[in-house]
This record gives sequence, structure tokens and C-alpha cells, in this order.
Amino acid sequence: MEGYSTRAARVMARCRELASVTDVPGEITRLFLSPATRDAHTLVGWWMRQAGLEVRVDDAGSLRGLRRTLDPEAPTLVLFSHLDTVPNAGAVDGPLGVLLGLAAIEELAGEVLPFHIELIAFSEEEGVRFGFPFLSSLAAVGALTEEHLARADGKGVTAGEAIRSFGLEPSHIPETCRLRAGTRAALEVHIEQGPLLENDDVSLGIVTTIIGQSRLELTFHGQSNHAGTTPMPMRRDALVGAALWIAEVERFAGGYKQLVATVGRLEVLPGATNVIPGEVRVSLDVRHPSDESRHAAVARLLTKAEQIGTQRDLRVRAKVLSEQAAVPLSEALADGLEAAAELSGYRALRMYSGAGHDAMILAPHVPTALLFVRTPGGLSHHPDETVREEDVEAALATTLELIAHLHL
Amino acid sequence: MEGYSTRAARVMARCRELASVTDVPGEITRLFLSPATRDAHTLVGWWMRQAGLEVRVDDAGSLRGLRRTLDPEAPTLVLFSHLDTVPNAGAVDGPLGVLLGLAAIEELAGEVLPFHIELIAFSEEEGVRFGFPFLSSLAAVGALTEEHLARADGKGVTAGEAIRSFGLEPSHIPETCRLRAGTRAALEVHIEQGPLLENDDVSLGIVTTIIGQSRLELTFHGQSNHAGTTPMPMRRDALVGAALWIAEVERFAGGYKQLVATVGRLEVLPGATNVIPGEVRVSLDVRHPSDESRHAAVARLLTKAEQIGTQRDLRVRAKVLSEQAAVPLSEALADGLEAAAELSGYRALRMYSGAGHDAMILAPHVPTALLFVRTPGGLSHHPDETVREEDVEAALATTLELIAHLHL
Repeated sequence: MEGYSTRAARVMARCRELASVTDVPGEITRLFLSPATRDAHTLVGWWMRQAGLEVRVDDAGSLRGLRRTLDPEAPTLVLFSHLDTVPNAGAVDGPLGVLLGLAAIEELAGEVLPFHIELIAFSEEEGVRFGFPFLSSLAAVGALTEEHLARADGKGVTAGEAIRSFGLEPSHIPETCRLRAGTRAALEVHIEQGPLLENDDVSLGIVTTIIGQSRLELTFHGQSNHAGTTPMPMRRDALVGAALWIAEVERFAGGYKQLVATVGRLEVLPGATNVIPGEVRVSLDVRHPSDESRHAAVARLLTKAEQIGTQRDLRVRAKVLSEQAAVPLSEALADGLEAAAELSGYRALRMYSGAGHDAMILAPHVPTALLFVRTPGGLSHHPDETVREEDVEAALATTLELIAHLHL
Repeated sequence: MEGYSTRAARVMARCRELASVTDVPGEITRLFLSPATRDAHTLVGWWMRQAGLEVRVDDAGSLRGLRRTLDPEAPTLVLFSHLDTVPNAGAVDGPLGVLLGLAAIEELAGEVLPFHIELIAFSEEEGVRFGFPFLSSLAAVGALTEEHLARADGKGVTAGEAIRSFGLEPSHIPETCRLRAGTRAALEVHIEQGPLLENDDVSLGIVTTIIGQSRLELTFHGQSNHAGTTPMPMRRDALVGAALWIAEVERFAGGYKQLVATVGRLEVLPGATNVIPGEVRVSLDVRHPSDESRHAAVARLLTKAEQIGTQRDLRVRAKVLSEQAAVPLSEALADGLEAAAELSGYRALRMYSGAGHDAMILAPHVPTALLFVRTPGGLSHHPDETVREEDVEAALATTLELIAHLHL
């Protein structure tokens, strides 16, 4: 605490210091097992050791610090988040949860607890390097497969090879990565990355469910042709068909409070100013807390695309890229967090998470909670991403209050 | 004519033979002053010499063959088209006009005409390599500027450097490229590249005007954000705004018979499946035979974009990239072509050209005609682009009939 006005200020200062550990000077970019990952392990590992933790790096590259209690047979509470980032990221998405967990452990110095606390800084949550997220939390629950390890990055290096190059051993993953036997509860603190808490003027959110997600790719096939010589009634313009559908996606999703549907990618072929688009590929991302409602929404949007195709003589093809069911989190821990927030003098909103988090990988295996911290402007995955010191204090106080009353 | 059933069959056979001269094996691609250009000059130049023409390559890379008449002071008729292609092109866009002109000259063997005929195979009509079309016809009318020659291709080679690398000399362009003094008429034969002649079951089209064109780039600025955590009502999705506008472009242009408006390019930023688009750039191509109507249409479409921007809290910016006024062609030559077609027993439709052609560069300087040949399916800039032999015969007979009655 030396030199910091508050314990929350120190958490923020450490986030900023960690932000200087980057693969790309001038921005914050730490990909899975990159050179910056090793430096981040050195820095955060040093802070962990200073706090009295037993520190190690598991064979999926996660940094883990253990605060043992007296009884070796005691259960374990896991506090976790991640150290990897998207390219050109902000300073708090991931690190906040790790460094807030560390701050909580520092506050507990000298206290005897009836459980061990393991602080886990996962190595790969964002999924940038190998195109799939949650590598390290999957390892922690024994769900990382050979197929995962065979995936290659942009340079053709597989996840398994990356692990070996970092000096770790993929075949040891089952042994070194699994959550400790007797792990009875897990808590992730993370920024909301959305506007709801700010809109309601609340510091904290307690996530009850991580909502399900469908990702699709649709292709509209028309006929590319000369933009100057093809009269409007004789066109089969794939882009106009896709545009009508994109407008419909927003209109439809806007009619349901908990539904979000997004077209984030769009590719036009051939893509020349003077050529009528012959083919357009678009992505579709649909999320809803109810899997049934999500499936119904996807079906409805596909039907709408088919209708536009029929009306405009376009061929429409759809491919489901991924389906992620909604994941309910621990009700008991959510109740505990709510009580803890209240005891600490803070309001907390029960909410869904529209984004995926490591918490959804752990939840089926261990009672798991996810505490959201208000995100100014809802801005994340951006250099200007930040968090207010008073909200960090709220999250830290709530975490400490939860730990104080936790029965595992 | 040896080995060909008809003179039109020979024109087509030569188009196919020339199609094998390509920069990219397996497709038809001949860019400005590429290695394939030199081979095309060798092949077509050989045919020209066989037909008794004086052959040279001017310093803009155009292949020119001169059929002199007895009187050196006689006027000149120019027959022209181009040898360069778009990437992965068809076999007739460009070459047809050159090889049909050659066939006409071959048919005239032994006849004494009261004018010279210069056959010009322009080197750069499509504008692929340096991003601007008509380089060689601009040179022919003295309108190619230093600024044009300073433009660089994708590898940073300027047009001037490309000319020098080909063994030509840019500073000689004014001297070697200009149309001959006494050039009194010019005729381009070209495929229609549109569906109108086929729709009316007519072989030939006589172009009265090359319609004007506006090219713009519009940018829709919204706010990129997380696709899972941002409720629909709180979004400023640049792609949905652009999509509504694209649908409106088609709807609006569809209301006017001679107006065409096309969005051919669209770029989404950041362009990730799970990120709400923050910025979208689209191209707009608007064409109409009347410049006044075209300007009114552009203004109306920009107003519509502004309205969508205002409604949806998006910032819309528009940039005019180019404005090309409509170019009227020679009425006298159009009348001559119409009479020639009729005398040859063919119907010809008077029409606008929605595409740009070298004819529009020559027209302000010399009476110029453009004869269109029906294009099956309206398909061009495509490997399947073709033309019917009977329509080639119609164009050749009409050209010969025009020449027979031409008074320069």
C-alpha cells in the first residue's frame, strides 16, 4: 500500500504497470504465450510472491498463486481472471480480476481462513492466437483436447508447439492444470464491457447466466455485372439483398428486450466501384439468455433471408459456425455476492453476461460466480477502456465480504 | 480466310488465339505494358503486317497499323479499340474491335479509298494498373499529363517508368501518340456489355451518347462496441445505417428508367463477428444520360444518407471521387452507321452507353462513332464473355458499308 492513497488506487496502478508489458510497443497487446506473457508472469508472479503465495506456471501457461491455510485437507476458493488481451486492448479487461484478487489476498494477511485460496491468472481467454477462446480454463477443467492443441496460429505454429516453445509440456496439462481437488467455489471479477451498470448508476453487477450465442455465416449469391450497362430492373444485386436483410436483423432483434443480433463482418465480391455485387458474405451473431428463444430468433432470421432471396432471385446459403448454450452460474454464490455488496454498502444489479468469460467454462464443474464492475461508456477492447477507482473499491470490499462469510 | 468458314469466324478465332496471350496462365489477363502486352503486339502486329499495314508501337504502348491511300494529303479514318483487359477477363472486350477493324481492312484489299485508315489498338483502356482508364487514348488526343505519368501502380512503379521499362520514351508521347493530322472520323466497335440488345433481339447498337458518371465514397461513422453486451436500443451500428441507405439507393434509382446507381464496394470496420460495426465505407456509382438528372440524383441520395445519419446518430461523410460529364458522339457518323446497317440487312438500336470507352476521349477532338455488338447474357469482364458469330458478321458488314459510303 506504500505510496497509494487507497487499496483500489494500487489495483489501478498495477493494471497500468502491467499494461506496459506488451508485445507491440505503443499499444497493449499480450497474446497467448508471447514474449510479453513471460514478462507478465515475472511481474505479476513477483507481486504474488510478495503477498506470500506459492507461485507456479501450469503447463497451459496460466500463472497460479496458492495461499494455503493450516489444514491441508481444507477446501479451496479460486479467484481468477486472465492476463492475455485482444490486440490494441485496454488495461483492465482481464488484469483487473487478477490484481483485485491479489489485493483481496493482501488484505487478508495474517487472517486464518477455513479454506485455501488459489489465484489463477489464465493465459488464454480472448482466443486471438488460435481462433478459439478459453484454452487455459478448458485445461483447468480437463476439457482441453488434442484437437485443441493441434490448432495452428497465423504462422502455422500449433498450440501444443507454442506451449513447448514456452518451456512447458502439453502432456503434463492433465496433471498441472486441473483445479485443485476440493475446489468448492470460484469467483471471477471482470469489467462489464457494456453500458447497463452505468445506465442504472450502479457499481457492480452479479451475473446469473452467461447467455448463449449462435454464430453463422450467410452468403447471398446474385449476379455480378456492369454497373453502367445493367438497368436496375435486370439486376440481381447480392449487396442490396444482404442490406435489406441486415436492416431486418436489427428491426427484429429490437423487438425483444433480451435479444441481441449483430452483423459485424461483410465481404462483397468482386468489390469494385463499377461492378454490381455478385456475392456477399455476412456474419451473424445472435445471443439470448434463453437457448430456446435464441434458436427461434436464428430460425426466424434465416427464414427472412430466404424470403429476400426468393423475392430478389438470390440464392442464400447459411452455415452455423458455432453454438454456445447459455451457462447458469451458481445461485448460492450470487446470493452471497448480493449480501456481501449490501453489507459493504454498495448496490449490485443482477444481470446476464452477453459476453463469454472463463467463468462459463468453470461453472459446470465448480460453483462459480462472476462479479461485473461498471465500465465507463461501456467501452472495452479499446485503449481508452477504463474503470472507476470507487467501483474497484466496491468490487474489492464485496469480494472480501464474500470471503469473510463463505462456507465451503 | 484459309480454313475459316466465314470472315466472322476468323475474327472470333483470332480473338481466341489472342486470349492465350496472358500474364496469368489459366485466365485472360493483360495489363498495361505487361509481358503479355509485348506478345500481343507481336501477334497482332504480325496479322497487321500480313494485311499490308505499316505497323508501329507508339510511346504510350498502343499498336498502330496504317493503310495508306495514294494521296499522302488524304484524310484519315481511325478504327480502334484496345488490347488490355481486366483481370480474369473474357476474350472479346477490346480485341473484338481491333480484330474486326483488321478484318475490314483485309476485305478492302485491292480497293482504292479516298482516305488512309489507321487501325489503333490502344494499350490501356480498363485502367487496372494505375487506377485510371484511357491512358493511351488520352495520349492520342494530347491530354495525357505529367500527373497521369506520375501515378504509381501497386508495386510503386509509375506509368512513366513502366513506359520506359517497356523500351518506350514518355517524352516522345506528344510526337508519336497524337492522331494523324487530317484524321476526320473514328469508329470503335465494342461489345455492349449489357442486356439491352439481347432483350430487343437486335445484333447492333449505335451509341449516341456515353452517359455521365459520378463516383463517390460515403463513410458512415457510428460506435463500435461489444455485440453481446450492447442492447439493441443503445447501438450506433454504422452497418445498419449503410444497409438502409443501400436499399434506398436501389429503390430510388429503380424509379427512373435511365438512371443506374450502384454500391459496389463496402468495407466494415473493425469487421469482427462479435463487434458492432463502428465505421462503414461504401462506394456509389451513379450514371444518367443527362448530367443535370445525374447531379440531382446524387444530391437526393446524399440527402437520404444524411437523413439516415440524423435518425440513427451516425455521422455521414461523402467525398466525390470523380465526375464524368456525358459525352455526345457524332450524329453524322451515327446516321451513317444506321444507313450502313440497314443496307447490310441488319437492325441497329440507337442507345446510350452506360460504360466508358476510348470513344469518349476521342469524341471531343474528332467525329467519333461507337458500334455495339450484342453480348449474350449481357455478360462481360468474365471468362464466359462471348459474342455470336452472326453479330460479328453484322458489325463487319456494317463497318464495310460505312467505309464504302464515307466522305471525309
